[in-house]
Formats: sequence, C-alpha cells, structure tokens
Amino acid sequence: MPNATLLEAFPTPSDVPFVVEHIAEEFTSVCPVTGHPDFGSVTVRFEPRAARAGGVCVELKSLKLYFQSFRNEGSYYEAVTNRIRDDLAALMHPAWMLVRTDWKGRGGIRSVIRATHGDVPAIWAS
Amino acid sequence: MPNATLLEAFPTPSDVPFVVEHIAEEFTSVCPVTGHPDFGSVTVRFEPRAARAGGVCVELKSLKLYFQSFRNEGSYYEAVTNRIRDDLAALMHPAWMLVRTDWKGRGGIRSVIRATHGDVPAIWAS
Amino acid sequence: MPNATLLEAFPTPSDVPFVVEHIAEEFTSVCPVTGHPDFGSVTVRFEPRAARAGGVCVELKSLKLYFQSFRNEGSYYEAVTNRIRDDLAALMHPAWMLVRTDWKGRGGIRSVIRATHGDVPAIWAS
Amino acid sequence: MPNATLLEAFPTPSDVPFVVEHIAEEFTSVCPVTGHPDFGSVTVRFEPRAARAGGVCVELKSLKLYFQSFRNEGSYYEAVTNRIRDDLAALMHPAWMLVRTDWKGRGGIRSVIRATHGDVPAIWAS
Amino acid sequence: MPNATLLEAFPTPSDVPFVVEHIAEEFTSVCPVTGHPDFGSVTVRFEPRAARAGGVCVELKSLKLYFQSFRNEGSYYEAVTNRIRDDLAALMHPAWMLVRTDWKGRGGIRSVIRATHGDVPAIWAS
Amino acid sequence: MPNATLLEAFPTPSDVPFVVEHIAEEFTSVCPVTGHPDFGSVTVRFEPRAARAGGVCVELKSLKLYFQSFRNEGSYYEAVTNRIRDDLAALMHPAWMLVRTDWKGRGGIRSVIRATHGDVPAIWAS
Amino acid sequence: MPNATLLEAFPTPSDVPFVVEHIAEEFTSVCPVTGHPDFGSVTVRFEPRAARAGGVCVELKSLKLYFQSFRNEGSYYEAVTNRIRDDLAALMHPAWMLVRTDWKGRGGIRSVIRATHGDVPAIWAS
Amino acid sequence: MPNATLLEAFPTPSDVPFVVEHIAEEFTSVCPVTGHPDFGSVTVRFEPRAARAGGVCVELKSLKLYFQSFRNEGSYYEAVTNRIRDDLAALMHPAWMLVRTDWKGRGGIRSVIRATHGDVPAIWAS
Amino acid sequence: MPNATLLEAFPTPSDVPFVVEHIAEEFTSVCPVTGHPDFGSVTVRFEPRAARAGGVCVELKSLKLYFQSFRNEGSYYEAVTNRIRDDLAALMHPAWMLVRTDWKGRGGIRSVIRATHGDVPAIWAS
Amino acid sequence: MPNATLLEAFPTPSDVPFVVEHIAEEFTSVCPVTGHPDFGSVTVRFEPRAARAGGVCVELKSLKLYFQSFRNEGSYYEAVTNRIRDDLAALMHPAWMLVRTDWKGRGGIRSVIRATHGDVPAIWAS
Repeated sequence: MPNATLLEAFPTPSDVPFVVEHIAEEFTSVCPVTGHPDFGSVTVRFEPRAARAGGVCVELKSLKLYFQSFRNEGSYYEAVTNRIRDDLAALMHPAWMLVRTDWKGRGGIRSVIRATHGDVPAIWAS
Repeated sequence: MPNATLLEAFPTPSDVPFVVEHIAEEFTSVCPVTGHPDFGSVTVRFEPRAARAGGVCVELKSLKLYFQSFRNEGSYYEAVTNRIRDDLAALMHPAWMLVRTDWKGRGGIRSVIRATHGDVPAIWAS
Repeated sequence: MPNATLLEAFPTPSDVPFVVEHIAEEFTSVCPVTGHPDFGSVTVRFEPRAARAGGVCVELKSLKLYFQSFRNEGSYYEAVTNRIRDDLAALMHPAWMLVRTDWKGRGGIRSVIRATHGDVPAIWAS
Repeated sequence: MPNATLLEAFPTPSDVPFVVEHIAEEFTSVCPVTGHPDFGSVTVRFEPRAARAGGVCVELKSLKLYFQSFRNEGSYYEAVTNRIRDDLAALMHPAWMLVRTDWKGRGGIRSVIRATHGDVPAIWAS
Repeated sequence: MPNATLLEAFPTPSDVPFVVEHIAEEFTSVCPVTGHPDFGSVTVRFEPRAARAGGVCVELKSLKLYFQSFRNEGSYYEAVTNRIRDDLAALMHPAWMLVRTDWKGRGGIRSVIRATHGDVPAIWAS
Repeated sequence: MPNATLLEAFPTPSDVPFVVEHIAEEFTSVCPVTGHPDFGSVTVRFEPRAARAGGVCVELKSLKLYFQSFRNEGSYYEAVTNRIRDDLAALMHPAWMLVRTDWKGRGGIRSVIRATHGDVPAIWAS
Repeated sequence: MPNATLLEAFPTPSDVPFVVEHIAEEFTSVCPVTGHPDFGSVTVRFEPRAARAGGVCVELKSLKLYFQSFRNEGSYYEAVTNRIRDDLAALMHPAWMLVRTDWKGRGGIRSVIRATHGDVPAIWAS
Repeated sequence: MPNATLLEAFPTPSDVPFVVEHIAEEFTSVCPVTGHPDFGSVTVRFEPRAARAGGVCVELKSLKLYFQSFRNEGSYYEAVTNRIRDDLAALMHPAWMLVRTDWKGRGGIRSVIRATHGDVPAIWAS
Repeated sequence: MPNATLLEAFPTPSDVPFVVEHIAEEFTSVCPVTGHPDFGSVTVRFEPRAARAGGVCVELKSLKLYFQSFRNEGSYYEAVTNRIRDDLAALMHPAWMLVRTDWKGRGGIRSVIRATHGDVPAIWAS
Repeated sequence: MPNATLLEAFPTPSDVPFVVEHIAEEFTSVCPVTGHPDFGSVTVRFEPRAARAGGVCVELKSLKLYFQSFRNEGSYYEAVTNRIRDDLAALMHPAWMLVRTDWKGRGGIRSVIRATHGDVPAIWAS
C-alpha cells in the first residue's frame, strides 16, 4: 500500500536556490480495473526551499522504498501521479515541484500524466 | 460500430490541474470508399476539470474497448477523429483536449488529423 | 494531364476547427525542359471551414487519382505546387492550407517548394 | 568560368507568395591559392516576386549548368557564395534570398558561408 | 575527503567576457546512507571576471584532483553539488557559474542536480 | 609557437553582410602544466566588415598554418581561445566574431571555451 | 512501353574480370490489375565478358531511358523483373547477372523479386 | 587527362605482409555521353609485395594529384575503374589489389564498380 | 622522434591466454612529403605469451608516451604502422598482434593500414 | 582490496545448459603507476555446470560487493581482468566463462581486455 511514512528528508544544504530531479525508471503498480500490473517511470523535479527557511530534500533510499510501496496497489495512473505529488509536497513544501509519470503500453495504449505543485518555471515544465 | 456507451470514467483524483496523455498505437477502422482496412494510432491529451467541479478521467480499459468498437466501422479519417473528440468531450467535459490520429499509408498517402476541444495550450498542441 | 475534376469532397464532420495533413510519397511528373520524369512527395496540410459554413474535406482516394493525373504532365516544380494549391483551394475553400513538395535530386539538385492559401499558423508553416 | 548568361528564368506561376529551395550537393570549384579542387554543396532559398509584378523563377537545368561553370574557376569560398547570390539576385530580383555554401574539409578545416538578399524571414535564415 | 585546498587558479587571459565549460564524466563518491558508491558526471560552466578585475580560471589538473578527493566521501548528491559550487565560487568569484551533476541510477532512480552562483544567462542554464 | 604573422587576409567580396564559419577539427597544442598534448576543434564564425569599409576575410590556408603553429605551444585552453580571438580580430576587425574551442577529455574532463568579439547575434552564439 | 531498342552498349574496357552494379531508385510502372502506379527500385549487377571475347557494358543514359520506357506499362512485378533480365542479357551476354527489384508497399505489402542469368557468385547473390 | 606519370611510390617499410586502404571521397570525372560531371568515391585496397622483393607503396599526395587528373576526363565509370586498377598495378605490382568506385546518382541511377588484381582474400573483397 | 626505449612492460598476470586491446584516438605525426600534421587513431590488439613463458604486457602510460614521441616525426602511414608493430613485437613477443591505424582525410583521402605479427585469429583480424 | 570471500553462490536450477551474463557498468579501481582512478565496465558471461553435477551460479549482490572491493586497489587492467576470471572460476567451475573489461580513456587511450575459462563458444566470444 502506498506508504508516505516511508519518506524521509534531510536538511537542504544551501540557501542558494537549486533544482533537483529524480527519475525512477522501474515503477510498478496494479490496474484497479483488470488487476494487471502497470509499469512506468516517475520523474520528480523540484526546487527545495532555502536552508534558512527550513527547506528539506527527500532522501533517495526512502524515495525508492516509498515507490516500491505502490507495487501491489490497485490505483489509476492519475491517482498514483497526484498521490506522489501530494505526499512529496507534504514532506518537503518545495518552492515548486513537477511529478511526471510515463506508463508503458497496456492494451496497446501508452500514457503520460503530469501533476504540479506551485509555479513550475517554463523551462522545467516539459 | 463506434460505441460511446463503452466509455467509462472515474472521478479525477485532484483539484490541482494536471495533464493526461493516452497513445493507442494499434487502431484500425475501414475505409468507407474502398472497404479496405485503415491502420493508425490515436493520441488523446487533456486536462481534467478539478475534482471539486466534478471532473472525471476516462478509464483506460473502457477506452481500449471503445477504440476496438471502430474495427468494422467504415468512416473517414476526419470523421473518426472528430467522433473520438466529441465522445470523449461528452464523457469528460475536460478543461481542454487534443485528439490526434496518425494513419499509415493507403495508396501511397499518409495522413495526420488533429481535432481539439477548448483552448489547448501551445506546448501541448503539436 | 492534371485533372481537377477527379477531386471529390465530403462534408466536414464538425464545426470545431481541426487540422488535416496528407503526405503523398510517390508523386511523379515530367520535366518540361528535358522530358525526364521527376519524383517527389507532396504534403497537403489544411483546416477545413466549419460544417455549418459548408466546409468540406478532400476525399483521399480522389486525391490519389488527382495526384496520379500529373504522371505524364510536363510542368515545373513551382507550377505543380501552385496548381495543387489552387485546385485544392477551389475545391475546399479551407480556412488555410499549405502545399509542400519535396523533389528528389535531378542533375544533383534537390528542391523543396512551399505554397500557401490564407494565413497558415506559424506552428504549421515549416 | 562562372557564367551567369547560362541562367534562365521562367515566369513565376502565381501571385500568392511561395518559397523555393534548391540544394545542389555536387558543387566543385578550385582553390585560388593552392589550385586544388574544392567540394561542397550550395543551398538557394528564395521567394519569387508575384507574377503580376513580373516575378520569375530560375530554371533548374540552367541552374545546374551555371553551377557546373564554376568547375574550373579558382575562387575563394566567400567570393563563390557572394557571386551566386549576386547572379541569382540580378536574374530574379526575388522578394528575398539566402545562398548557403557548405564546404568539405581542406587541410582539416570545414567551412560554411551564408549570403543574403533582402530581408530573409527568421524561419528561413538558419 | 573533499579538499578545496587542492584547487588552483591562474589569471584569466582576457578582459573580454568569455565562457568556460568543464565536463567531468568519471565522478564518484559514496552514499551516506547505504555506504555504496555513487557514479555520475559533473558539469561546471562559468564566465570568469575580467583580467583587470583580477579574474581567475580554475586550473584543469587541480580540478581533476579536487574531484578525485570526493572518491571516498559519504555525501548526499545535493550536498556534493552545492559544495562544488561553493568551493569553486570561493576560488574564482566568477561573474556567474552553473554546477550540474548527473547521477547514474541507484535503486533504479537517476538524479540531476543544478546549483548556480550569480545570474546564469538563460542560454547557459539548461 | 603561435604565429599571427602567418595569417593572411583577402578583401571581402561584397558590401552586403554575410556570415563565414570555419571549423578546424584537428587542432592540437600542449598542456602548460603536464606537458602532454591536448586535442580539440576550433570553430571561427564571423561577419566581415563591408568591402567599401575595407573589410577582409582570413585566407583559409594561412588559417591552417596559423593553427598548426600552436602544435608545440604550452598554453591553457582559455589562453589559446582568447589568443585566436585576438589575433583574428586584429587581422580582420570583423563586425562580430565567435571563437569556440571543444577539447577532448584529459583526466576524464572535457572542456568547451567560447570567446567573442563585438555583438554576436543570438542565432550565431550557441 | 518497355523498349529494349533504347539500350546501348560500349566495349568493356578490360580482359580482367570486374563487377558492375547499377541501382535505379526511381522506377515506376503500372499495376496491370488496378491500373494504379507502382514505385520501386531496380538493381542490376553483372560481370561483363572479357574484352577479347567481345564483352560489352550497358551505357548508363540508355539504361535510364530504357527504365523510363516502363513508365506507363501495365505489368506484374515478376514480369517486369524477368523482362529487364532478358533484355539486358540479350544486350550484353554477361558472364553472370542479377536483376533485383524492390517494390514499395501497395495495400500494406512490400515485395522483392530477384532474377538471374548464368552462375551468380554467392557473395553477389543477396 | 588521367596521368599515370603523376603517381609516385616509396619502398614498402616491411617484409611482413600488411594491408593498405585509401578512400578518396571527392572524386570527379566527366560523362563521355552527356558531358556532365560525375561524382563518386574511390577505394584502393592492397597488400604490397615484401620489401626484400622490391615492394613499393603508392605515395599519398601523388595519388591525390593522379585522382585530380581525371577531373576533366570524359570516361565511362567502368573505364575509370579499370584504368585506376591498371595504373596502380603497373606502379606497385602488389600481392593483390581491389579498386572500388561508388558513383552518386545520375538520372536516378547509382553505380558501384569493382576491379581486382591478383587474388583478393575473401575478407577484403566486399 | 619515435622512441622505443620509452616502452615499458610488466609480467603478464596469467598462464591462461587472454586478449588485450588498446585504442589511442589522439595520434598525430607529420607527413614526410608536405610537412603537414597527420591525425589518426591506433588500435593495438594482442595475446601476451603465458606468464610461465615469460610473457609481458605493455604498460599503458609508457605506451602513451611512446605514441607521443611520434608527434614531430615525419613518416609515412605505412612506416608508422609497421614501426609500431615492430617495436611492440620486440618488447612483448606476443603470441600474435594486430596494429591498425585509421587516418583522417588529407586532400580528401582517408587511409587505413593494418600490420600483423604471428597468426591473428580470424575473429580479431578485421 | 579485492576480496573473493565476498562472493557467494547458489545451486543452478537446471540440468539443461543455459547462459548467464552480468554487466557491471560502474567499476572503478586505481592505476598502479599513476595512482589515478580508472573507470570501466565488467561483463561476466558463463554457462553454469548442470545441477546434477553440482553446478552453481554467482549470487548477484555478492558480486556487486566483490566488484566494490576493487575500488581502492592499485592494479593493472590485465591483472584485474584475470583476477576476476580466476575468482569466479574458483567459485563456480563453470562449463565456460568470458570476463571482458572495457576501460574509459586515460591519456587518450581506451582499452578492452578479454580473459576466458574453458572453451567459450564462438558466438559468445566477441
């Protein structure tokens, strides 16, 4: 079951704004309608708040475990994407964030979902 | 026969705007003039309305079955494309939507048709 | 001989603007100076007028036969391109249209000709 | 010897603006310093003036012969490029024109020269 | 241990602004959580201050040794990136600088971190 | 030893602005710190002043010999790049010029240096 | 109409065996069943008999005109291929010859036909 | 005019067999039928005789000048290829040699000619 | 000057046969005829003799310095290749060895030279 | 320090021959001459002995830790490769095995080393 308590954060190392991007290429969940597994990739892109403002970054191993907690979850693509956005926003309160999921074909149909938090600058929105 | 009653939707999971893209690469219908089969791909790209506004997303398995219902339909490329746009718009009333069909060659001519609903942002229109 | 009477149209299926693109990769005509055959491809891209305004789309098989009618025509690249633009504009009175021809090399020179009707939006002009 | 009298033109077939592009991939001339042959390609891109304004297009076979007349000419890349621009501008008085030459390496150095006539629209200038 | 005293600089050779880019494709450090090695590349892009203003450039061999000093350091991606930015900014006080790290996958997740100093012009920010 | 007296120029053939680009892919000099050879490519891009203003273009064989004169010179990448810019600017006084050097890896680090003269138009600056 | 009298030959220049290969990429004929044009390429590969044995080679411009004579011929792929083999064998009596035709798709099916004369060595038969 | 006296050779540096391959990508001659220029590449591959047997290798600059001497020669592809083979065989008496010419299209037909001297090993014959 | 005394070797670590391949992509020497620099790559592929038979491997840094010693040497491609083969064979007495040099174009001609020592197995000979 | 005791194995699951390939793309050790880090990839390809003959396969996490144990080892490429072959052969006694290491460039020289155990079938030897 998706488990946001797995997520851990560490204090951001700087007051100067910078941009982090994590791309998980081996994400899997289960289709809530057919029960078949879905495979895809998840891209998380964000700017942490400044260190002096208490900004944090998600820790990478905890992110991996969090993504793995979706493994047997029956959930729509759209719900997975928005849940990841919500859980990571609650953890980090980043300056802005984009969560993008790319799903391999099922029944011959590929899908891409994008959810955002805050104002994503144009050059990071694609 | 194209059958919009096959289409099902589920409530969108979020009030925050996000973008969904489904690409079906194994679409087939029949040429109304020659009776020969046509092969192509269909891309559906849209932003669902917010959850609080009753926004919904098309369910993927139902989309697959809906696309399969075109299999023995004799219909022009242009009509197929506009019908998919109309049926999905009627189902979801999305904030905006693009339906793009790419058809393999027939008589040495390849075709691409694009139909839209609402104001498709420039970065999603190509 | 190029024969515009071969062209047929059918009523456009929608009042909502959409964009049609046909790419014919096996076009041939004859050089009016040397009498040798020319080979190339023709791209036709247009937005039909709305259905309520009597908008029509060119029928694909008739377009193929129309293109075949250039087979033994001796005509300059530029004239072929403008003639196709004129014949299709006369048939459809589209909102806008681009006709682009790409010619294989003759005497070591490749050529590309673009002719337009109405205001082609920038994203469709290349 | 470059011979502009080889160039012939025919009346442009239309009053509607259109864009012509000829790419000659087998151009050769001679280096004026070393006497060794140079090899390259020449791209000519232009918009003819309207037919009602007496607009003309360069005839393709005459263009080939004109390019061949450079075969034993000893001339700098820059002079070749500007001369082609000048000769074609004198022949056609086009609305605008770009002449671009791409030269294969000599002594390990490749070169690209671009010369223009009139205001080349940004989308045609690269 | 990362060792900024390894870094050396030499006077910039010019008062005219110019842009330097160094790409180190064989960077390695250690994950502070799991103790496993991390592999990635580091891109440093900057404009040195003018010579008359005492501008300097980082010397390349010293940069290599500095990067090697991270080899057995346990440090987050984000901290590595910001530390490199801080150490090089302290050394050079450049007009502007971008430090970008691209990390190979660990647990199936790839990461990209970008940290900046001063105003990075848009064409150098990607 | 870099020898600017090797450079020769010839009068530019035109008053109409045009753009010249020379790409030397076999450049080599020597690292002043380690004494090992460096390998890279040099791109020179410029617009000569008009002929009526006494504009000149660098002659290609002289440019090759000039580049060869760096063969046993011990010099930083940054100094090589700025020196080429200065020597060519002194020779030609071009309307604008970009000198870009791309260096193959040394110690696992690749480098790119760009130096400019005058206002390089945006479309030529990359 | 296919016209073998267009074919001309010239004496082979050598007694030493050698191999000639001509590839015509702009071949077109007409389908005898549907009347629609077919497009494809023709490869002719052969070893001429020795000069002292009266060996000849087909002249290239005559080969082009011969191929053009198929332009309005209604003929099966198989018949076209065998006819070319027969006409060229009658003209040249080569030591061996392969004629291979590659046809672009019609109704989604591509075709390749190979016809031979004499003993084609294994390394030339593919 | 093709001029074999331009060819020079130098003593092969070894008694141990080795294989030399020269590829000239900027070859041009003239079609004897149409008078138009032909463009192509020439590959020369050979094993020199041993040094103790008086073996020699063709000198590269002389080979370049020899190839340039075909520039205004009107000659069939087949004759050019055999002539190069004969001239180089007379110069070097190599253990074996392959001369292969690849000609760019003329009238839509590309050609490849291969002429050999002695027994070309299978792995070098393609 | 090529200096074989720069080459060093170390005892091969095994009695079991194995294959070593070194590819130097930044080789340069000087043309003995024109005095201009030549650029190319050198591939050395060999099987050392067994450790119990006193087999040795060339040390990599010494190989780099040895290759650098050709930097200002005026020597034919063929002589460079055979010299490298001879020097390395004298150093290592390998079971077999292939030395292959690939030279960038000069006067439009690229060259590849292969020299061998002992019986190079077919799968390593290309 | 390379530590073969880290390696673990598990019983092979079958009597039917099969082929295993592990590719580690993030291998690093240290040059014994210069002390600088080396980066490369290691490919291990083998056929385990049959289950009934006590065949085993190397366990993947133990292989990762074993490879990491080379991180600060100063060792020649050739010794690293043979050591991995020896350690894995001692662990598994496979029917046959190939160990191939591909090393990134140092001083402009890339290297590939191949060591084998038993008779590697030709199709697995490259």
